[in-house]
Amino acid sequence: MKVAILGFGTVGSGTAEMLTKNKALLEAHAGEEVEIKYIVDIRSFPESPFADRIINDFSVVEKDEEVSLVIEVIGGAKIAYDFTKRALLAGKSVVTSNKELVATYGAELLALAKEKDCYYLFEAAVGGGIPVLSPIANDLSHNEITEISGILNGTTNYILTRMFSSGASFEAALAEAQAKGYAEADPTADVEGHDAARKIAILGALASGKMVSSDAIHTEGIRAIRAEDVAAASKIGCSIKLLGRYLRTENGDMFLLVAPFLLPADSPLSGISDVYNGVLVRGNFVGDVMFYGRGAGSEPTASAVVADVDKIARGAAYRPAFIVADGDIPTEISFFRTRRYVVVEGIDASAVEIIFGETEPLSSEENAFLTAEMSEKGFKSRVARLEACGGKVVSHIRLYR
Amino acid sequence: MKVAILGFGTVGSGTAEMLTKNKALLEAHAGEEVEIKYIVDIRSFPESPFADRIINDFSVVEKDEEVSLVIEVIGGAKIAYDFTKRALLAGKSVVTSNKELVATYGAELLALAKEKDCYYLFEAAVGGGIPVLSPIANDLSHNEITEISGILNGTTNYILTRMFSSGASFEAALAEAQAKGYAEADPTADVEGHDAARKIAILGALASGKMVSSDAIHTEGIRAIRAEDVAAASKIGCSIKLLGRYLRTENGDMFLLVAPFLLPADSPLSGISDVYNGVLVRGNFVGDVMFYGRGAGSEPTASAVVADVDKIARGAAYRPAFIVADGDIPTEISFFRTRRYVVVEGIDASAVEIIFGETEPLSSEENAFLTAEMSEKGFKSRVARLEACGGKVVSHIRLYR
Repeated sequence: MKVAILGFGTVGSGTAEMLTKNKALLEAHAGEEVEIKYIVDIRSFPESPFADRIINDFSVVEKDEEVSLVIEVIGGAKIAYDFTKRALLAGKSVVTSNKELVATYGAELLALAKEKDCYYLFEAAVGGGIPVLSPIANDLSHNEITEISGILNGTTNYILTRMFSSGASFEAALAEAQAKGYAEADPTADVEGHDAARKIAILGALASGKMVSSDAIHTEGIRAIRAEDVAAASKIGCSIKLLGRYLRTENGDMFLLVAPFLLPADSPLSGISDVYNGVLVRGNFVGDVMFYGRGAGSEPTASAVVADVDKIARGAAYRPAFIVADGDIPTEISFFRTRRYVVVEGIDASAVEIIFGETEPLSSEENAFLTAEMSEKGFKSRVARLEACGGKVVSHIRLYR
Repeated sequence: MKVAILGFGTVGSGTAEMLTKNKALLEAHAGEEVEIKYIVDIRSFPESPFADRIINDFSVVEKDEEVSLVIEVIGGAKIAYDFTKRALLAGKSVVTSNKELVATYGAELLALAKEKDCYYLFEAAVGGGIPVLSPIANDLSHNEITEISGILNGTTNYILTRMFSSGASFEAALAEAQAKGYAEADPTADVEGHDAARKIAILGALASGKMVSSDAIHTEGIRAIRAEDVAAASKIGCSIKLLGRYLRTENGDMFLLVAPFLLPADSPLSGISDVYNGVLVRGNFVGDVMFYGRGAGSEPTASAVVADVDKIARGAAYRPAFIVADGDIPTEISFFRTRRYVVVEGIDASAVEIIFGETEPLSSEENAFLTAEMSEKGFKSRVARLEACGGKVVSHIRLYR
């Protein structure tokens, strides 16, 4: 079996290394040699041990009938989209870590793979090295899945962990994450929740068969979280985590959202710190199960890429059934009910009770409280009332439960 | 597809319920109806909705060529062994939750299944509902697996959790677990670690391909853990967990053991409380991943049983490769190196330093300390020296790292 790697960056080089180092294991599974025939990159790497296999022209791969599997680790949804389509059209299976491409064109590419009798797999697109897509598709899909909630972005989890451990502000924790190489110079995709939105779109599609554009998902990042919120959460034994959530209510309604949540200490997601990721899945018989591990990094991501290569090599690949269905999973979350942590100013405690109903005041230097369970719609209408009285919401974080 | 359930106890009735309630999901996967044709039990259940399918005679199942899959949830290694063998000999796949049978006869039954071109699967034997055997076999086996460490027994984890949360003695916490139905009247198999030993034998076999008798595994239970040990562990921010461990050293040596360990709070296994289970797997590229969920109970266990049924129904079953290899995985742990928590009496602190080398004294009313890393053999020889000086070990718990 001959494979080609597209993109020789962090993940590409990790993948080449794993295919080489764990060659014996892979070949024992596949029953044949698994060989890297080409690595396609626009750069050249004369010092690399793989230098002899590095080429610049994808069409060589496309036309080489010996290559049956292409590993796309370029990223983005432009060149990667073109190359993936051409590989599948040529009957080659494609394995990727490219969450943007899967979240944008997953349904189309899966349909094309099926039509061409080959595979399109993307374990590495969600949760880094953690096996999560395959366990959901292969080990849990006989359950009615009512919830998938995940800490899906290591950068924001690192920032939140530091805010809790050192009391740092968001800005200070972000600067620290950038200094450590955990956050990019432009951290928008991470801190605004866009990265998590792509990942929960993929998880939701896997669970429901229906894919929505991640741009349509209600997405709140962590930029608005203040040191005061962290202190208040700590006082009541909670952590704050940025969660991507897929939820299905008892009457079959489904929705997706990305937002920070307050988690009690006994929630399995609560203890996941630093750059680690965790994905909780709730099934009607299995109850809550959680998958935990490194959500990024060259080696863990390579492991997830090679997991898919391994499945294809030993004839154990599966077909995630995504259907493009914008609107089928509501991205409107108005009926989502939960308790809420709220900080207001401009009104006094008695006005809080009148507007928000029964609340649990928090000992804080601010006017901070927890509400009873209420829907997004109900919350919005109370906020409107608050503002009409000259008050304003300083902070609002949903409770996980 | 017609199936038979052997044993209509907790797991058997949960399995029948899931096969009924989630029928549509299973049939969508299988592409055909999945029907319970028989339930075999020595008792009769006239009030059960499945009463019309309950029979007493296994040979009816054995001879019915329509039945292609048998679910063995009888338990034990006697009748269950006989029925499993006969089902496999008749070319029927067998799915089970029976850890004792798998730990004792797994290699033989897997070989028979392969010979008869059918399957023997046992996801429910380890970790209750948590998908763990399949992810290790199918999603992580392209990694060199250097460690599997699991909280594999809910009863002991509940007892330890209570000892930490309430300061209760082992006996008081055990009585509480018994009152809640989490521990049996004779709790030996749980508290002495035998249940965990069977499960780690299965996990070790899955990772290494080599099976050892669980009786040969070095096994320590939790009976000797005192409230004083719990207090000392809490003071240094550690929990105590009963772990089943499969370890492979850099030079390829493998060994298995079951014992309580002190875990630092940042270990992902540390926060797993009550009756929950967790299994940590370390691979050479993926790093540490952990699987978490309910380790027992009718519904979660049924979920794991039906996961295997589902795999067989949709043609996605796998063959765990166990080879009987007593002695191949050393059950001798003399070279296992770790730090240790030790409490001694009969000698003073200066004698401790002389005998145990550099130690870290713990603030405790006892002569308690942490040692540097030392092997089992090294520890034993120090204990011999201690005893020769008239001292004695009151408590000894290994550190997880």
